[in-house]
Amino acid sequence: MSFKTTAAVEEMKVKVCNLHAELLRWGLVTWTSGNVSGRVPGTDLIVIKPSGVSYDDLKPELMVVTDLEGKILDGELAPSSDAESHNVVYQRMPEVGGVVHTHSPYATAWAARAEPIPCVITAMADEFGGEIPLGPFARIGSDAIGKGIVETLQGHRSPAVIMQNHGVFTIGKDPKAAVKAAVMAEDVARTVHISRQLGEPVPIPQADIDKLYDRYQNVYGQQPSPKEQ
Amino acid sequence: MSFKTTAAVEEMKVKVCNLHAELLRWGLVTWTSGNVSGRVPGTDLIVIKPSGVSYDDLKPELMVVTDLEGKILDGELAPSSDAESHNVVYQRMPEVGGVVHTHSPYATAWAARAEPIPCVITAMADEFGGEIPLGPFARIGSDAIGKGIVETLQGHRSPAVIMQNHGVFTIGKDPKAAVKAAVMAEDVARTVHISRQLGEPVPIPQADIDKLYDRYQNVYGQQPSPKEQ
Amino acid sequence: MSFKTTAAVEEMKVKVCNLHAELLRWGLVTWTSGNVSGRVPGTDLIVIKPSGVSYDDLKPELMVVTDLEGKILDGELAPSSDAESHNVVYQRMPEVGGVVHTHSPYATAWAARAEPIPCVITAMADEFGGEIPLGPFARIGSDAIGKGIVETLQGHRSPAVIMQNHGVFTIGKDPKAAVKAAVMAEDVARTVHISRQLGEPVPIPQADIDKLYDRYQNVYGQQPSPKEQ
Amino acid sequence: MSFKTTAAVEEMKVKVCNLHAELLRWGLVTWTSGNVSGRVPGTDLIVIKPSGVSYDDLKPELMVVTDLEGKILDGELAPSSDAESHNVVYQRMPEVGGVVHTHSPYATAWAARAEPIPCVITAMADEFGGEIPLGPFARIGSDAIGKGIVETLQGHRSPAVIMQNHGVFTIGKDPKAAVKAAVMAEDVARTVHISRQLGEPVPIPQADIDKLYDRYQNVYGQQPSPKEQ
Repeated sequence: MSFKTTAAVEEMKVKVCNLHAELLRWGLVTWTSGNVSGRVPGTDLIVIKPSGVSYDDLKPELMVVTDLEGKILDGELAPSSDAESHNVVYQRMPEVGGVVHTHSPYATAWAARAEPIPCVITAMADEFGGEIPLGPFARIGSDAIGKGIVETLQGHRSPAVIMQNHGVFTIGKDPKAAVKAAVMAEDVARTVHISRQLGEPVPIPQADIDKLYDRYQNVYGQQPSPKEQ
Repeated sequence: MSFKTTAAVEEMKVKVCNLHAELLRWGLVTWTSGNVSGRVPGTDLIVIKPSGVSYDDLKPELMVVTDLEGKILDGELAPSSDAESHNVVYQRMPEVGGVVHTHSPYATAWAARAEPIPCVITAMADEFGGEIPLGPFARIGSDAIGKGIVETLQGHRSPAVIMQNHGVFTIGKDPKAAVKAAVMAEDVARTVHISRQLGEPVPIPQADIDKLYDRYQNVYGQQPSPKEQ
Repeated sequence: MSFKTTAAVEEMKVKVCNLHAELLRWGLVTWTSGNVSGRVPGTDLIVIKPSGVSYDDLKPELMVVTDLEGKILDGELAPSSDAESHNVVYQRMPEVGGVVHTHSPYATAWAARAEPIPCVITAMADEFGGEIPLGPFARIGSDAIGKGIVETLQGHRSPAVIMQNHGVFTIGKDPKAAVKAAVMAEDVARTVHISRQLGEPVPIPQADIDKLYDRYQNVYGQQPSPKEQ
Repeated sequence: MSFKTTAAVEEMKVKVCNLHAELLRWGLVTWTSGNVSGRVPGTDLIVIKPSGVSYDDLKPELMVVTDLEGKILDGELAPSSDAESHNVVYQRMPEVGGVVHTHSPYATAWAARAEPIPCVITAMADEFGGEIPLGPFARIGSDAIGKGIVETLQGHRSPAVIMQNHGVFTIGKDPKAAVKAAVMAEDVARTVHISRQLGEPVPIPQADIDKLYDRYQNVYGQQPSPKEQ
């Protein structure tokens, strides 16, 4: 193969590989059931988990590099069977630098009932700017899942979508941001589920949701600086 | 004892022993409540956990080797009290190379209500090809449990059965596949339980289940190669 | 103080100390909320956790030795505030060699509703020989809790009792057996809870419970041998 | 900056930093969603977690020192975005030496329904002296949250308040006591939730709550001594 790797590609392999440990740590995945990918900044190169490999056995050099159509450019293993869905997102949402897919239990439980997750806690307003929306039922093996993700998330504040009867997809400016969205999506899916088990949670007024979202996106955390990772 | 061990037997002791760590890791077992066995390929030799030994204390040399009737051929300890049930499966299902038994909490909760687990998430369609079926109530101490497992699983796509008021048995081509089925059975038992707590999950049409199952069994993961373990 | 320790006392300090790690590992305790004690075999000496000490900081030499009336014989710290309840059990049940107390969440949830845990899974029949019974509401600071435990467990198969609005006490021939009973009590409390969330579990006929209990108590595990710990 | 640190300030940085590990260990926080602060004894100096920094990356030297108005005196990072709420508590409750904020799932689930957590287990009577009260809905970005905390907790036995649609704030004589309150608040929020899922828990009579609270606050644990940390 004529692919020539670069420092940026190798760096992305390390990041994508290591972020899978966060999926395990926060209880989002079972066996080999979730995957992370990242776009090498400024390129059309995607780095993604190989298919069916245990999280314990992941190493940066096992990551698969493809183009936006899924053609394997680097790597000896087949990419995640969800690669096509990731690629459709990268093709149609050029601002996206990372995609995560999981079947995390609480978020998937909402998806199996085809219910969006309502925004009844301030942490949801902060991170998702409102409900976590529901995408359509779609089978793997075509661009249907990817299209469903894009059509649901375009024009929506939420970086997470729950796909009916399936699981969660999240996007971010880079793979770490997409992982954070996946972690927080499961966290709020769980809290709202638990709350609703014993009655109806109190809605947060839309005006408050708007102000919380605006503040969190623009003020929270450390301001970017040369020190930031 | 006149039993002569072989490299294949010793290898299977290591595999069976180590796979118990996966039962612990994924929350399937408590104290000493689950067990793994494997058939030494091409033989009628079964390797199984000793009875009542803590997972912390398991070592390959403590594994028990029996024939298909449960006669101890190698090992100083008594085999798992579930050995008879494992053996009936190996006798009647020659294609089975691994058996796992657990009381994992969500799957056992369905079993206590005598309800099969409905197929409402795509991960279930992939792994189980439909619902996880219910086997009969049967007491330990005869071949009744083994027969119930075999009669439920023969002609069924699912490698997992929940036995009424009891727990889960899974089968696979080798012990690792049976462990994977046990891990995924608990994972989907939990997600479907959580989903149904707040309403009725949306069924997946049978035609979609069939296509998902076919694809996952034939396309997913890395294709077998000399590298595969 | 004129107390002279013995090898048996020091051995019991190590056992009691280390068994607290099992309470943590199986999710039975939070902060400092559970305790283990043991009777030094053939004596009226009780070894128990000191009060309010973090599990991380426990060391065998911090264990407290008392007589059956709770008089401190050895140790610089105050014994667990539950010591009086343990002691009443040791006084009135000479066959008991270990006592455990926890507020494990699922078992305590049944206790807060003042409901015994029904026997609907075979693992309960094995370990508890039927339901886990409910003891009375009693306040700490007298022998009322201890009396409630003894009156509930005497003549009952179960080594575990849930005390109304409070938590779990378990007994055993030694501290390890009492810890096992506490771990299994929470395990079955959880599974039966989950099962009942979506409907009514199927009861196990009494005759089957009796046979399962008899078999488990008399056949399960390795037969005692010099090797057994 | 003209701030001169002291041994007491540096010691508080170590304590505040390390206590975040307890939030993780007991499952109270996800990603970066909780924070601990402490008042340097005898001063108006507050030590608090920096904003948006992963728990893995926390080191004592990253802690931020502010005055009671939130002016940064020491530290290169921005303080937690919840610092203003902490500060209002320190200003108005001079007896408070530690404050903790989390979105722990069970407690936050009660908060999303705007329901105080009823006192139906003795551990709650011990720690909280009754129910865990509900504070008002308030948006971050002013002193509204801090005021809501103070107005709810002043004159109340409970060191924990659940803020509507938001999460938990706890106070203590020092940061460790506030962390203990946060850990126990989630523990009892979970047990009471689980109990109520299958029916109505039995209330504890007020006179018993009073006696349990009095005993626990005055008798439990080791009496203060030079050895106590």
